[in-house]
Amino acid sequence: MLLSDRLIKRIIDLKAPVIVGLDPTIDRIPALFKEGKPNTFEGAADCILEFNKTIIDAVCECVPAVKPQIAFYELYGSAGIKAFEQTVAYAKSKGLFVIADGKRNDIGNTASAYAGAFLGEVPLPDGSFSLGPFGVDFLTVSPFLGAESLEPFFEAASAFDKGVFILVRTSNPDSDVIQSAVTSSGGDSVSEYIAGVIDSNSSRCLGEHGYSSIGAVIGATYPEDAATLRSRMPKSLLLVPGYGAQGAKEAGILPAFNPDGLGAVVVASRSVIYAYENEFSAVCSLSEFSSSVRLAANLMRDDIYAALKSKYPGMVY
Amino acid sequence: MLLSDRLIKRIIDLKAPVIVGLDPTIDRIPALFKEGKPNTFEGAADCILEFNKTIIDAVCECVPAVKPQIAFYELYGSAGIKAFEQTVAYAKSKGLFVIADGKRNDIGNTASAYAGAFLGEVPLPDGSFSLGPFGVDFLTVSPFLGAESLEPFFEAASAFDKGVFILVRTSNPDSDVIQSAVTSSGGDSVSEYIAGVIDSNSSRCLGEHGYSSIGAVIGATYPEDAATLRSRMPKSLLLVPGYGAQGAKEAGILPAFNPDGLGAVVVASRSVIYAYENEFSAVCSLSEFSSSVRLAANLMRDDIYAALKSKYPGMVY
Repeated sequence: MLLSDRLIKRIIDLKAPVIVGLDPTIDRIPALFKEGKPNTFEGAADCILEFNKTIIDAVCECVPAVKPQIAFYELYGSAGIKAFEQTVAYAKSKGLFVIADGKRNDIGNTASAYAGAFLGEVPLPDGSFSLGPFGVDFLTVSPFLGAESLEPFFEAASAFDKGVFILVRTSNPDSDVIQSAVTSSGGDSVSEYIAGVIDSNSSRCLGEHGYSSIGAVIGATYPEDAATLRSRMPKSLLLVPGYGAQGAKEAGILPAFNPDGLGAVVVASRSVIYAYENEFSAVCSLSEFSSSVRLAANLMRDDIYAALKSKYPGMVY
Repeated sequence: MLLSDRLIKRIIDLKAPVIVGLDPTIDRIPALFKEGKPNTFEGAADCILEFNKTIIDAVCECVPAVKPQIAFYELYGSAGIKAFEQTVAYAKSKGLFVIADGKRNDIGNTASAYAGAFLGEVPLPDGSFSLGPFGVDFLTVSPFLGAESLEPFFEAASAFDKGVFILVRTSNPDSDVIQSAVTSSGGDSVSEYIAGVIDSNSSRCLGEHGYSSIGAVIGATYPEDAATLRSRMPKSLLLVPGYGAQGAKEAGILPAFNPDGLGAVVVASRSVIYAYENEFSAVCSLSEFSSSVRLAANLMRDDIYAALKSKYPGMVY
């Protein structure tokens, strides 16, 4: 079964087209994860790993995937990247799909190096190849360098049954100037042009449910755009950040889905992983922390599922 | 003395507005660096580190800076990032400025995490801050997420006397559709719009020579663009890849400089670090390898300097 089908099966089984972002920032990690840790990059990386494992344990039966944001690991250099590797491995051992949010981008063999590291193979000193160090399922990719810069990522996705989410439309207000600029490609906006590139490559990773793991990131704050871009990439899985933002659910999130209730996954990060802050102080207990995460993830899942079911009563799950 | 002044002083002293890219790919690293290395990520990372140290020793009296491309280190996960950290530290110990080519980008506190890791400070478990794990001088940054996504990088550059090179116009053919798209910001192209954002922030890191370490990447293959963008960002340092490409020198590289012979640095990577391939096989000796690197770096420096001096006889060095 291809990646898109495996992910969709899990979404249907859990009634959960949602994923949890693992964005650990040391100032918001509860005290219990810091106890006994040295005040070094390694100590910080250890805090992050324990924090993540606890979250993974709490949500692995409730959501299909987690999305670690690499910046928060790279912050601690090689020690942090080690914690990233261990987080990925732990999440996979618990049956979760892993989306590395790195927004990587470059051209030629540099782009191939990123693709190999996250999705594919890497060359060893003797000329042989090994699976890459991260082995995630999906990587987010920035398209600023143009269509050709995406090719190495499409190629790795196709060769290794992996996926990509290319930034098409982001939810921050200031992104509009660049992403809505008008291209010479049929008068399409930059976002529409990239959507076209993604769509024309989607058949390279197309599963039996009709969805491709060659996907896109579509922010939840521009409702018309979400609908337009959904129709431009009917076969692509869409990654939708912005859950929790004002009015995002009805306006921005639902149009990213198709009437079958599939085709998109909604991300919640801080509202889930720091849910303890609503009830407890930084000195909360492990069980208080875990139950707050589990509750927030379940509420989010139920919320999205109910909104989707109400819009598309005939959806497939 | 601010970063831009320190870099310019070194450029003038060496008559070398050029930098060497450290893009190590295992298949092109000579056999001598692979001997005795285990066939693992750690082994590959060790090859890369030794290869880099030899190049740094060969060029540190000839060019002011090196530019490691992070993708080739990330390829080996935490072991590769460790080699990146060690490469940066070694280059700095030899008096070189270091430009990390990562094309990182994100928004809000995620962008701040990248900025902290490469240019600034990072938070430790006890709430105190430490200088970041990489401590490079400059980071390349992608602007796809808009002007606000650049702010954390500008802020770190300003607070810690560091620099950024924002992607404005890249040299790969396919980048044109996005980078030449027309924005709603006064009819500027995407590239011109970003140039405007950079220019309006350049005073935050302005040195006594009149140049700012808030700079831009301008590919060498679009001559008119280089001149236009130079005039849009008169105070910014420009990073110009593409040396060695057909006709790039006259057409694309020189317009990035001002009549004082300053304002830009030209990058050569593979033509320098793999120069041994022109003369020797993969079983070349250490001294053959070193001298080929030194020769190629010197030739490139002399070539650029002569072309610049011929165009601007009154330049300041």
